[in-house]
Order: sequence, then C-alpha cells, then structure tokens
Amino acid sequence: MTGWVTVAGLGPGAEGMITAEVQAAIAAATDIVGYIPYVRRIAPRDGLTLHESDNRVELERAAHALAMAAEGRRVVVVSSGDPGVFAMASALFEALEAQLDTFAEVDIRVLPGISAMFAAAARAGAPLGHDFCAINLSDNLKPQALIEKRLALAAQADFAMAFYNPRSKARPDGFGRALDVLRSHCEPDRLLIFARAVSTPEEHLRVVPLSEATPEMADMRTVVLVGSSLTRRVGRFVYTPRSVPE
Amino acid sequence: MTGWVTVAGLGPGAEGMITAEVQAAIAAATDIVGYIPYVRRIAPRDGLTLHESDNRVELERAAHALAMAAEGRRVVVVSSGDPGVFAMASALFEALEAQLDTFAEVDIRVLPGISAMFAAAARAGAPLGHDFCAINLSDNLKPQALIEKRLALAAQADFAMAFYNPRSKARPDGFGRALDVLRSHCEPDRLLIFARAVSTPEEHLRVVPLSEATPEMADMRTVVLVGSSLTRRVGRFVYTPRSVPE
Repeated sequence: MTGWVTVAGLGPGAEGMITAEVQAAIAAATDIVGYIPYVRRIAPRDGLTLHESDNRVELERAAHALAMAAEGRRVVVVSSGDPGVFAMASALFEALEAQLDTFAEVDIRVLPGISAMFAAAARAGAPLGHDFCAINLSDNLKPQALIEKRLALAAQADFAMAFYNPRSKARPDGFGRALDVLRSHCEPDRLLIFARAVSTPEEHLRVVPLSEATPEMADMRTVVLVGSSLTRRVGRFVYTPRSVPE
Repeated sequence: MTGWVTVAGLGPGAEGMITAEVQAAIAAATDIVGYIPYVRRIAPRDGLTLHESDNRVELERAAHALAMAAEGRRVVVVSSGDPGVFAMASALFEALEAQLDTFAEVDIRVLPGISAMFAAAARAGAPLGHDFCAINLSDNLKPQALIEKRLALAAQADFAMAFYNPRSKARPDGFGRALDVLRSHCEPDRLLIFARAVSTPEEHLRVVPLSEATPEMADMRTVVLVGSSLTRRVGRFVYTPRSVPE
C-alpha cells in the first residue's frame, strides 16, 4: 500500500462548510492527526485511528504524520479553517525540510478550506471586499515589534485587515497595543468586526467603531476584521466598496 | 413565498471544492445570476432560470438579483472563488446601498467559497503560511498610483502577497509596473508563483525568482503569489515558515 499525507481544511466549524474533496480524503484515511478540538470533529469509524495532540506541538505532529505516511498509512492532518493560513500546512513543510532525506518521496497534498476570516466576512457582509491583509497577532513565533510595524504599514496602505489569534490568556496585552497602533493611524469611526466562533452554536458578531473597541472584545476564538477608510454600514451589513475614487 | 438572495462562492473550478451549503442554496434556488462562465457551471433543471450577464455589469446584475428577491424569488448570485474577495458580495451591497429604501427588507446572505488564492497556495505548498496581503492589480476601479503605493508598503511590511487580475488585454502594462515596484524593494531571488486556472483541466503552476518573472507569465486567469523574504522551496513545494527570527 502506498501511503500519503494530506493537510486538509475543515472550515470554521459548520459541517456545511466542508468541501467534498476534504470529506473524500477523510473517508479514505487510515489516520487523522491534529489539535484535539479539530480531531474531535471527525466521526470515529472502524479502520480509522484518531491521533489527538495538544496546541503548540505542530512540528512534532507534522513529523509524526510524515512518518506514518512513509510507512504506508493514509494520513489526514486536520486544520480548522484553511490549512495554509496560520495553520498546519507550513508546519508540515517545516517538518519535511528538517528531514528531507527521509521524507522526500512522501506523497503530500494540501486541500484548501473555508478560512475563518472569509466565513466571518461573509457573516458581516463584505468587509474584505477590496485590498486587504491578514496578520497573526500572536508573538509566540515573531517579535512584537514586527507585528506593530506591519500594522502601521497596513494602515498606511489603507488595507482592510483580518487579525488571527488576537488575544489569549498567555498574551493579554498585545491586542491592546495593536489597537493603539490602529488609533494612531486611523480615524475614530473606523469599523471593527469582532467575529467569534463563526458557524458554530457560539457564533457572535459585534461591530464597533475603533473609538469603542477594547481588548476584552477578543479572545482566541475571535477573528477581528478592520475596515479600510472606505468601509461602511449598509442596513445590518458592513462592506468595503470595490472602487477607490481618484 | 418569501424571496431571498444569496451570494455564493463556487470555488476556483473543481466540483469537489464547492461546499455543501452552497450546493444546498443552488438546489433551493429559482434563479441563478452571474457572469457567463460562472453561471455555466450550474446544471440546468426544471424550475431554475439561469441569468447570464457579461463582465463589468456587476452593479446591474446585483440590482436585478435584489429586485427578483423582492418579488419573492430565491436567487443565488454565483461568484468564482470566494464572493467576498474581489467578487460579487461588495457589488451586491453597493446595489443595496443605492436603493436601500426599496430593498431594506430583502433577506440577504453571503456563503463563503474556496478562494482562488488559497487554492493556488495549497497547490504550491504553503506560500501564504504567514502574514500576507491580497491586492487587485486592476486599475478599472482605483488609481494605478494607489496600487503601486500598496505594493511598496506591502513589500516594506514583508508580507507574502496574492495578486488578483494581474493582467488583461485591456491592461497589458500594469503588471510590468507592479514587478518593477517589487524589484525596487525585494531581493532578486524572491519567489513568485504564477498559478493559472487552479483545479480546472487547464491548471498550470510555475515558480520563478523575481529576477526571471515577466509580465507575459500572467493573464486574467492567473493568480500571482509572491513570497515574503523567508519564503523558500522544500522539495517540489514552496512555503513560508511560521516563525520570524528576532
């Protein structure tokens, strides 16, 4: 039997947001590997082994998946959202790079998923409807100074923005500093969307102007969307127009 | 009968990349509205009217969809990729804003799809695996100077980048200017991925360093991905690591 490893995006939570090709990969798998809450989204069945692992062990998990595939197993590494956006795809290629001689022949595929930011944007309207950027606010793997530099340049570029991992118990202060950077570059009525647990039973959306945004509005299950200078409300929606006047 | 309008993302092309909730919306629709090649992806059936329209009539198409929904029809506006990314969702809200008194009560939903850039990134590996931006290179609806300003700031921020609509017959020169901006900020071995028609039979990927990139490598069916300074090859893949050293 020829093994393979597929990194697959489960989307933000709802069953209806999983693609058919991801469902097919899971149906063909012998092993599912991932962070505990994502593996628990997979229905157990005979012949399928579920390997749950904790947060922050992405490299070990990726190496384990590669090793099982090299032994002939059919492994799906599950990510929430899209696996290429602050998720397991990069970790898998880091693990491949670290042991390229061993794993060069492993059959690797990445299957995209519905990203948390696009699910959040869809619920709100179309706040990312024009040029935008996505920034991971966690300073676990990069300097806080780089985060703040990117925020300032993104504001100068007048991008709409999506923030991943805005705030956690271990990092209570970074998001407040991010809001300070925004306040020094953007007008007080700039619109922010705090989108929590989109497409799950705990879904909650809140739209506030920058002047009213506080760090406590975000947690690890929140994606924060920031409008451009042109982003505005229409009815109950928030959208960014396609045009920028001369 | 209560009408509604749903803006739905069909993904980049492959049937397997369409979500179940989008399939369900199409199955419940009385009318499909969209740009000709996207409407042609929908299977005809009794009770379903297909309304094809040309490029560059997005606002008229959106107003037509709202008007039909207000009359009680169940309308799906189809977009390629994700409808919130340089696609029909913003156009629908622009049309809503223009006639808010008429359409304030219309039931509107947006259903996310697999975006062209994430499908392209998945095929290449994980080039958007860290902070990134998405820029529409068309100057139809914004000044060329703003495009070049955003490119320069994105390069200074060391974002990975995704370019939509890089080049068309009507705009043969803008992408060359975009490459010039990149060359003035990035090292010659910066990696670019030209991803054409991903997930269709015409799919073609090409990875080149910035020093070898030429405008002719892109057309209207191409998404161009640009790595950050840390993006690199591993085996046949291209990925951006999750970490940035101090």
